Amino acid sequence: MLIVQKFGGTSVGSVDRMRNVAQRCIAAQQAGHQVAVVVSAMSGETNRLLGLARQVHDDVNDREVDVIIATGEQVSVGLVALAIRAAGGKARSFLGHQVKIVTDSAFSRARIVSIDAEPLRECFASGEIAVIAGFQGVDEHGNITTLGRGGSDTTGVAIAAALKADVCEIYTDVDGVYTTDPNVVPSARKIDRISYEEMLELASLGAKVLQLRSVEMGMKFGVPIHVRSSFSESEGTWVVPEDSKMEAIAVSGVTVARDEAKITVEDLPDTHGIAWRIFAALADASIVVDMIVQNQAYDGTVDLTFTVPSLDHKRSMETLIAQVPDLVGRAGERIKADNDICKVSVVGVGMRSHAGVAKRMFELLAQENINIQLISTSEIKISCIIARKYAELAVRVLHDGFGLAGA
Amino acid sequence: MLIVQKFGGTSVGSVDRMRNVAQRCIAAQQAGHQVAVVVSAMSGETNRLLGLARQVHDDVNDREVDVIIATGEQVSVGLVALAIRAAGGKARSFLGHQVKIVTDSAFSRARIVSIDAEPLRECFASGEIAVIAGFQGVDEHGNITTLGRGGSDTTGVAIAAALKADVCEIYTDVDGVYTTDPNVVPSARKIDRISYEEMLELASLGAKVLQLRSVEMGMKFGVPIHVRSSFSESEGTWVVPEDSKMEAIAVSGVTVARDEAKITVEDLPDTHGIAWRIFAALADASIVVDMIVQNQAYDGTVDLTFTVPSLDHKRSMETLIAQVPDLVGRAGERIKADNDICKVSVVGVGMRSHAGVAKRMFELLAQENINIQLISTSEIKISCIIARKYAELAVRVLHDGFGLAGA
Repeated sequence: MLIVQKFGGTSVGSVDRMRNVAQRCIAAQQAGHQVAVVVSAMSGETNRLLGLARQVHDDVNDREVDVIIATGEQVSVGLVALAIRAAGGKARSFLGHQVKIVTDSAFSRARIVSIDAEPLRECFASGEIAVIAGFQGVDEHGNITTLGRGGSDTTGVAIAAALKADVCEIYTDVDGVYTTDPNVVPSARKIDRISYEEMLELASLGAKVLQLRSVEMGMKFGVPIHVRSSFSESEGTWVVPEDSKMEAIAVSGVTVARDEAKITVEDLPDTHGIAWRIFAALADASIVVDMIVQNQAYDGTVDLTFTVPSLDHKRSMETLIAQVPDLVGRAGERIKADNDICKVSVVGVGMRSHAGVAKRMFELLAQENINIQLISTSEIKISCIIARKYAELAVRVLHDGFGLAGA
Repeated sequence: MLIVQKFGGTSVGSVDRMRNVAQRCIAAQQAGHQVAVVVSAMSGETNRLLGLARQVHDDVNDREVDVIIATGEQVSVGLVALAIRAAGGKARSFLGHQVKIVTDSAFSRARIVSIDAEPLRECFASGEIAVIAGFQGVDEHGNITTLGRGGSDTTGVAIAAALKADVCEIYTDVDGVYTTDPNVVPSARKIDRISYEEMLELASLGAKVLQLRSVEMGMKFGVPIHVRSSFSESEGTWVVPEDSKMEAIAVSGVTVARDEAKITVEDLPDTHGIAWRIFAALADASIVVDMIVQNQAYDGTVDLTFTVPSLDHKRSMETLIAQVPDLVGRAGERIKADNDICKVSVVGVGMRSHAGVAKRMFELLAQENINIQLISTSEIKISCIIARKYAELAVRVLHDGFGLAGA
């Protein structure tokens, strides 16, 4: 088999842990596999480097910031390759420009365009383990780029896709993907197999275990992803194409996101172009809007409610007051803001064939007297905005109500 | 003018000092010059990275160690470029593989083969300051290499040669090259102009201000080198081709090296091939021999005396005992070793035309009752091995005896 193993910052957080990583790679090779390892910067290193850059310049979306923070992964690949050699194995490190991970030129959040797998194949042919820097690439002009937070997951899956690997193993500090946060719901179960679509929803809804883009890429190229613990040998969670067995289960997971805030603009004129002006103002300020609901009142006005990241809460209101004072009032008097919310969601490909999931979700919340403020749905997900104080209660009720609790 | 400025680790040792470097580059550009800056790693960083590598593997002459330690300069160029931008200038960083500093594949001590100046010219054409990582290059296979300690000086001069720059300014924490160590001889004078040949001798004799290979390269390509302080505006020392004015001065500088040890092998048979066997054994152990003197005794035997780096003193004796026991005795009983020596040297291109410099040197030492154990000469240098306890006394006597003291 050809195996790609990706180790995050915690898994390479010390010289001892790197030795542990080296042992795992060598064991896989000795079991007869070809092994490529993708590593992140040692935990804390990216933040240290960003801190240095910020002391010098406050613009962190800069070509030079990528030059600086890409060194974190460079140190890691050198050390892991050395650790493999010290343990008697053969290894060679590859930086983004050496394995030609070509990206676009969007510094600090670049997207992978292509990968040249040839140097890696040569490496395998000479019996070496390829140790590849995650998170970094190079644009068509030879500038160093980085992929954004969690980008090493994406590197791992992209390398697996380029090599047509049999599996991309994502090693992390938890032992897989859970039906919900085990810290909140002790009965949470590890999921053995989950579809790319469900994993995408879970990742975008706040399950932090895999980066969203890595799941998208796995789905696009059909790379089986195995999320597992770097501290144990047990099987983790396989993220794979949907199969009929998965559809037998209506709901696979429950998530909660606490990092959104709600904004309502009241008494807007009921004419065309209003929503466009409001969301254009926010988009120009690079504020990402999540859920949107518009209600028509009986007096010929409309109320517009939407959610934004908590961090952009204040800036959103300032932007609206500055850009569209005729709609929100010069002092923003028509804006009602609520930072005290959360979003609970249930996810499952089985929803497509199971009627009544939404009804059951609203019923479970109503039984606990939890008021639903906003609802949004996708084919395999239902999300509700509720008061933040009910976050844990709602997750527990939904998790157990949909029969996700472990035996 | 086209100016290359090289800043060492102390000069970029903190974010504040990087701002200082940025100001200097911008000032040079605003004065109408094209500016390329070569920077070292922040002081202490290379040692920190080497320490990490050593924790993992004890072989530091490894491809992967170069991958790791090259990150020191990478962080520096990013930060200096950011600092220039933060101060309102335009800048772009270049790593070894981006400016195509092609070297051989001798990891940890690579030599520069060629440089592609084209990316730098494009950078100048768009009004940017080029910020180049010192110390690092890339071999023909795309592997990252490093040039060895002090390699950033060499990068600076090599870049200046490739660009046909008008000057390579080497910024350091002293204000130039001195006639001797000012800590030993308070009357030491800063030298205004010195020839490449003299600077080569001074550098190889222990004056630490410029790396030897950078001077060789400056001489080879006729690059004027200006050694000066990064903390002041005053002129430093120009290292330039020899001119007639320099020849008027017999001796330009006095140096002392304390890091050698003396080994004598007594009672060797006076036949051919003996010296060859001894020095072959040392060379195979990568021990660099400096001065060599052979004395023929009246009884048909010879004594062979030579100096080696102090650090290799013990290893040299062990090597000889292991490799040529028939010559040195199985317990090394024919070896006499002395680690308590130093080498004082006088240097000057004027020696070529001034007779009697050697005579005057021996006279000055004799007047202080300093015994000379070994002598070696070159066209522009005379070195004497003496007891280490006389080091400072000898330097003072020679410095003042040759009229080098300041006004």
